[in-house]
Parts: sequence; structure tokens; C-alpha cells
Amino acid sequence: MATIRGMVRIKIAEVLDKVDKEVLLKGWVRIIRSHGKLVFLDLRDGSGMVQVVVNPQVSDSAYKTALETHPEYVIEVVGLVKKRPSKTENKELTTGSVEIEAKEIKILQKAEVLPFDMGGKDLNLELPTLLDNRGLTLRHPKIAAIFKVQETIIDSFRQACKEKGFTEFQSPVIIPQGAEGGSEVFEIKYFDHKAYLSQSPQFYKQIMVGVFEGVFTVNKTLRAEPSMTTRHLTEVTTLDAEFGFIESWTDVMDMAEYVVRFMINSVSSQNADILKIYGATVPKIPAKIPRLKLREAQEIIFKRTKRDNRQEPDLQPEDEKEICKWALEEKNSDLVFITHYPVAKRPFYTFEDPKDPGYTLSFDLIGRGTEWLTGGQRINDYGKLVQNAKKRGIDLKKSEIYLQAFRYGMPPEGGFSFGSERVTMHILGLKNVREASLFPRDMERVDESFSH
Amino acid sequence: MATIRGMVRIKIAEVLDKVDKEVLLKGWVRIIRSHGKLVFLDLRDGSGMVQVVVNPQVSDSAYKTALETHPEYVIEVVGLVKKRPSKTENKELTTGSVEIEAKEIKILQKAEVLPFDMGGKDLNLELPTLLDNRGLTLRHPKIAAIFKVQETIIDSFRQACKEKGFTEFQSPVIIPQGAEGGSEVFEIKYFDHKAYLSQSPQFYKQIMVGVFEGVFTVNKTLRAEPSMTTRHLTEVTTLDAEFGFIESWTDVMDMAEYVVRFMINSVSSQNADILKIYGATVPKIPAKIPRLKLREAQEIIFKRTKRDNRQEPDLQPEDEKEICKWALEEKNSDLVFITHYPVAKRPFYTFEDPKDPGYTLSFDLIGRGTEWLTGGQRINDYGKLVQNAKKRGIDLKKSEIYLQAFRYGMPPEGGFSFGSERVTMHILGLKNVREASLFPRDMERVDESFSH
Repeated sequence: MATIRGMVRIKIAEVLDKVDKEVLLKGWVRIIRSHGKLVFLDLRDGSGMVQVVVNPQVSDSAYKTALETHPEYVIEVVGLVKKRPSKTENKELTTGSVEIEAKEIKILQKAEVLPFDMGGKDLNLELPTLLDNRGLTLRHPKIAAIFKVQETIIDSFRQACKEKGFTEFQSPVIIPQGAEGGSEVFEIKYFDHKAYLSQSPQFYKQIMVGVFEGVFTVNKTLRAEPSMTTRHLTEVTTLDAEFGFIESWTDVMDMAEYVVRFMINSVSSQNADILKIYGATVPKIPAKIPRLKLREAQEIIFKRTKRDNRQEPDLQPEDEKEICKWALEEKNSDLVFITHYPVAKRPFYTFEDPKDPGYTLSFDLIGRGTEWLTGGQRINDYGKLVQNAKKRGIDLKKSEIYLQAFRYGMPPEGGFSFGSERVTMHILGLKNVREASLFPRDMERVDESFSH
Repeated sequence: MATIRGMVRIKIAEVLDKVDKEVLLKGWVRIIRSHGKLVFLDLRDGSGMVQVVVNPQVSDSAYKTALETHPEYVIEVVGLVKKRPSKTENKELTTGSVEIEAKEIKILQKAEVLPFDMGGKDLNLELPTLLDNRGLTLRHPKIAAIFKVQETIIDSFRQACKEKGFTEFQSPVIIPQGAEGGSEVFEIKYFDHKAYLSQSPQFYKQIMVGVFEGVFTVNKTLRAEPSMTTRHLTEVTTLDAEFGFIESWTDVMDMAEYVVRFMINSVSSQNADILKIYGATVPKIPAKIPRLKLREAQEIIFKRTKRDNRQEPDLQPEDEKEICKWALEEKNSDLVFITHYPVAKRPFYTFEDPKDPGYTLSFDLIGRGTEWLTGGQRINDYGKLVQNAKKRGIDLKKSEIYLQAFRYGMPPEGGFSFGSERVTMHILGLKNVREASLFPRDMERVDESFSH
């Protein structure tokens, strides 16, 4: 594995600082083009992409080796970094103002012939083909870029929470029973017992409020979601925050708004190039995201469409789209908070509004036509919590540790939760949430489709 | 929930900046002491702890309310921040140079009588009691502190990797089959199929090398570990890194060393107060952590102890302790790398040393008597990988996506993995890894013990 001439490899992103210098690069051949007597290679590494020009007049051996390469071959290149004449610059490449004049090329690892062309700007494959070949398709720069945005979303969520003094914790995946008594829970054989997979870190983050007051977690949540919609996965990377000593339930909404704004600003500044590739713009957010009670939203929708869903306990998909239209037209906002869902539509631990009985101090953040985030104030009084669970038929027998957190003094508290895949999908304008999951799992697929 | 006099609450950590000012604090009552005509409350919030002095001469109503409180009551306090006379300072408290003279106290939420005393510096409970009451015991400052250290460990791992240009990714928990063909895998009912819980992100991080070159993930790994040792959990938060274009397998060890050093330095600087509480010192690391082949280590152990384990394929627990003693005595290091484990003792994807056939380019980092971290170079040639899997009887039928990553050009690569709980345990000198897991899971417990 000795490197050519013992040179130290630099990353492709560094070539702009090395004009007129000789460099050693390593990476994957993305595209090979022959133009008359020249061979052009697009070389990709973890930091970016650059064009390599192979001229037999400069190096006959490099030229011969270049002709042997195929897409995804792993190679080493020693070459001279040359400024391109301004009219031949490639504006779509960060390194587009230079090219590498190859002096030596070495093949480090060959690749089999690709099952489809990976060279285009877009990877136009049907979703099943895209996913069946995930070990290869993720390498396409436009596909890989989705997960750079996701990295930003997750990391900026953590950063936003840390700036508010919240503590990060690790919530368990294996749980003694379904958190909210739901049926869509995966069961596992746990030695001689049964256990389940967590659908939400809800109980644990509430426990942790008692410990650190403000907490957050990036966690896997697993739902035996029996539907094959474009929005549902069985495994989701969920972002959860929860905090105590709130003055009002609106503190929770304020925190959610702050976090979402922080995340969107982070994507906007750190992933501007990727947004451009996707022709995407980050959601517009005014100084304050509009907030409507569910009934107010339904009234607005009725006035605008004459569609009367005013008695519904929730927004229908077409209502979500309509209220987003309203928010954009009237408030210049791509996002809107809907609050005060009926008690029956929210989990047993949700705080009922004392001033508006029958409705809860809860909210959803709706963006670009669908739900982004859900949250609210929780019942922090032990007696009320237990009573409410009983009333709703929720079995807390195996939730003794959760109950302790309330039995021994819990301040007024609340929190929110959202899936990183959905936010990624919405920001980039992807059509299916599966595109925003590296290795999407649904009822028909775990890596490979079950129907294979 | 209106706050006393509409004041804005400050966090306890901020009181040092407010000497001679009136502040509003909120938190949990940790300890109540009556001394003659004064009541002293230790008040705890998410940021720290402070002493509140309640003097009936200052406020009779505050005094009466203080007498009604019990440990873990949630209260609001308005009071004056007063400098303490130097001889009454409490050196063990960050806020020990001040106290709060209470003017008003309001009970926000009551707590039931605690099942045991939480007021001591230590929480002297048997492990089962500690864990059965996790919703309460985590609130003890010395217990909570463990998870501040864990937060530092996990976050500094991410930071160290990011500084090297690595990309963070999310590895799945649900997998189509046991990663390394092991038997200690949890099975889940996955709709009409079977699926399993991930024991390691190994396959996925290797796939991601093809995408981003250098990657890391903080991930849950689940093992149906049928043993009840002090070192094993069924659910672990694992820290994994993997990267390509290595020049030599020692690059992987260098990266592991850099990450571990970064983590230990972070704990040392960010959690000095906690280390003090635990009487713990971070592990000593010299300029370079000593590196020994397994056979060299065994030879050293034989010379030191006359215990002849030189034919063993691995270090025995007593050998791990002995080689750590050697490292400390001879190299002033609490950590030591052991390399070149025999081929049969390492997974099928491990790279065999061409210069030392039968032994692998792999390593374990041993610290304070037990394994901390494991890593090595991997086979990156598709043909060799498949051949090796076949030879070892590893079924890769459901690992098509993994195989693609190698079929289509994988550079020389390697990586390493370690559990955040074990590192937390070793740094703080805890006796049982369960103490280093917020909600530990083992074959006898998921939150509550199955024997209850």
C-alpha cells in the first residue's frame, strides 16, 4: 500500500490552495470521458470532487492506467493543480476553477461493472431499485447530499438545546411495555420474557426532567406501522426535548420555534450548495410563526374552501395543506402552529386547558402541508396523571419508574418531538420519506425487500 | 402558575453574579435542616445547588411554608443573595460562598415521603434498590453526575471525529440478520417476517466509508447477553468510527488513540468537579500509548508472573490486569494497545497481517484492567471478503447491500468501536456497568426486575 513517491495525500477540498503545486489525491473514479487524445476523470473523495486531465504527452503510463479504470475504481493520482482558463471553469463544482494534470495514476481497488449509470447529475431510478442497491446508490453525490443535510439537522438540534443549557441523555430502545398503550409496537423475545421496542422516549425524557430539568435525546423510535404511505417508516431517528419549570405551555412552543428556526438557519448556511442542487429553499419563517387553535384553523379553512370539517377532532391531510396555504399567503410563513387538540386526540399525560375544557395545551407544527413536530404541556401532578391514565385505560403497572418521577415532585413541564427524516424530506422537497433514510425500514423492506 | 411578583426566574448557577440582589429561584428541595429558629433548605435545579436560609424574622410566611416542605418538593423562592462570612463558606458547593435569604416561598408541587434518605453525600443503596427506584435515585447529585460525564464522553467522541472531517450517520437498529452470525441476537416479530436487533453498526459503517470516506455513529447496540457479570448489558450506547484510504492499519490505531485522548481531556477539563466527588483521576496517557502484539504481552506476563498463557488465543481477565500493571509501571500509562489477535478470534472481515500470517491487523485498547475499545483494518477486496465469509460459515445472503459496498470499489479501510457505559465506568471507577447506564437492561431487568 505504499503511496506513490511517499507523498502525503491531501483531500480534494484542499486543491484550491495548491495551484501550481504537485499533489497526491485518492478517491473513487466517478466519471470517465475520452475526448480525442485526452482522458478526463471526475475523482471523488469524502471532501468533494475534482476533474483530472490525463494527457499521454504528459504521462504515457498515467494515460494507459486511466484507460483501464471504470466508475467506482479506487485510485491514487499524483498531478499538478492547474488553474483552468476562465471560460472552461465548471461553476457547478467547488473545485471547478482548477483541474489536476495527472503525472501518475495507480489503481488501489477495482470495481465490478455498475448495474446502471451513476454518472448523471440525477440518479433517475425507481425507488425499489434505488433502495435495493443502497450500498452503491448512496455514493451518488446528489443522494449522499441528503444525508449531509440530515447530519446538519440532527447536529443543530443538539446545538440549539445545548445553548439553552439542556443535557443530552440516552433513552432506551428496549422497553417493558408500549409507551402509550398503542398496538403498533414491535415485540421482542427477551430471554424467557417479552419486551418491546420503544415508540417514543416520552416516559424517559419526563423522568429526566426530574434529574436535569431540561433534557434532549436523539433516539431510535420503532413503530410497527402497517401502512405503506410516503410518510411512514418503521424506524425513525427522533429528536426529543423536554423541560421543567415552564411558566406557561407557550414556553414549550417558544422553545420548539427556537429550535426549528436554529435548525433551518443551520441548513441554510451550512448546506447552501445542496439546497441549490435540489432547487430547494428553506421554509420561510416570519419573526413569529403563526399560532392558531384547531377550531380557528378549521374556521379559516371553512371560509376559504367551504369545506366544513369544523367538527373534526383533527386536521385532515387536505386541511393541513390548506392551512399552510393560508399561512404563506396571509403571514408569509411556511410553518404554522395548530394548538388545542381535543383531549381525546392526545395522550393521557397531556395537560387539559383549564380555560378551555375539553381541549389540551398541545400543539403540532405544520409545514409545507404536513406535520413536522408535536408537543405540549404535560400533567405534572401525580394524582391527576394516575387518574387520567386509569380513565383512558392505560396500564402503568410496568411504569413504576415513570410514576416515581411524578410521585416525588415534578415541576410544570412540557416538550416536543419530531422525526429527522421528515424534516429532511420537507426541507429538500423529497417525495418520499424513504429517500431521507439511509437504510429505510418499512413493512415490506429491511435492507432488501421481503418479496425478493 | 403565575410567578411571585412577576419576577423572572434565574438558574441557581447564576446566583454568584447576583450578590446583594433579589432573585427568583425554582427547584427541588434536597435537604431541610432546622437549626434553632432558622430553617436551611438545599435547593437544587438543573444548573446546581444553593443553600436557602429561612429566618422568621425576615419573613414569617416564608418560614411557615419552609416548615411544610419535604425533600423533593418543587418550590419557588424569592430571596436576597448574601455573601457568606468566609468561615461559613461551603467549599463543596459551587455556590458555597453565598446563601439565599428567603423572603417568599411558594410550593409548586408536593412530593410523597421518600422511601429512603436521599440527603447524604453518597446514596448508599444496594444495586437492586438503586435501580428499582431509578425515577428517584437519578436525582441524587452524585448519581446524576455520572451522566454528565457520559454526556461529555459521547459529545467529545463526536467532536473529535468531526475535527477529522468525519461525517455522522444514523445506523439502523432493525437488521435482516445477525451482523456477525452470532447467537446472542434478539429476534423480533416483524409483521409476517423475522428481523433482528443490531449488535453492531459494523456493516453499515463500512458501507458508509464508500459514501463519505470517514464516518462515525452513536448508536444503540443490543445483545442477548445471557450473563449477569458486572460488565455486560443487553443495551449499550456504542461509539463507532470507520474510515477509508488508510496507508497502514496503524492509522486506525492512531485515530483511536487520538479520539480516546480527546475524550479523556474533555472529561478532565469539563467534569473536574465530578472527578473530585468520585475521588477519580482520568487515566494517565503518555505521549504514545504502548502497543504490544498479543504474543509480546503474553511473554511479558509470563516473565512477570510465571503464569504461562502464551498459547492462549486471547488475554484472560487476570492477564488484562497484569498487562495494565506493566503498562503503568514501565510506561506510565493506564492504557495499552494489544494487537495481532489470531485470525480465528476475530470476525471474518478482519485483515490478516501479510507479514505475520495467522494473526490479524487488529487491536484492543486495554485500560485499568479491562477492554475499552476494539478495532482494526478490514478486508476491502470483494473477492477475499466473500471467500473469507464462506470459509468461516458466515451467511451473507441477506447482506447484499453490504456486499455492494465492496463489489463497487472499497479503499483500504478500518475502524473501531466502544461502549460509552464502559468508558464512563472506567473513568469514574464504578464497580458495575449498570451504574453507568441510566436505565440498564440485562437478562433479569428491563426497568423493573422480572422477579418482582
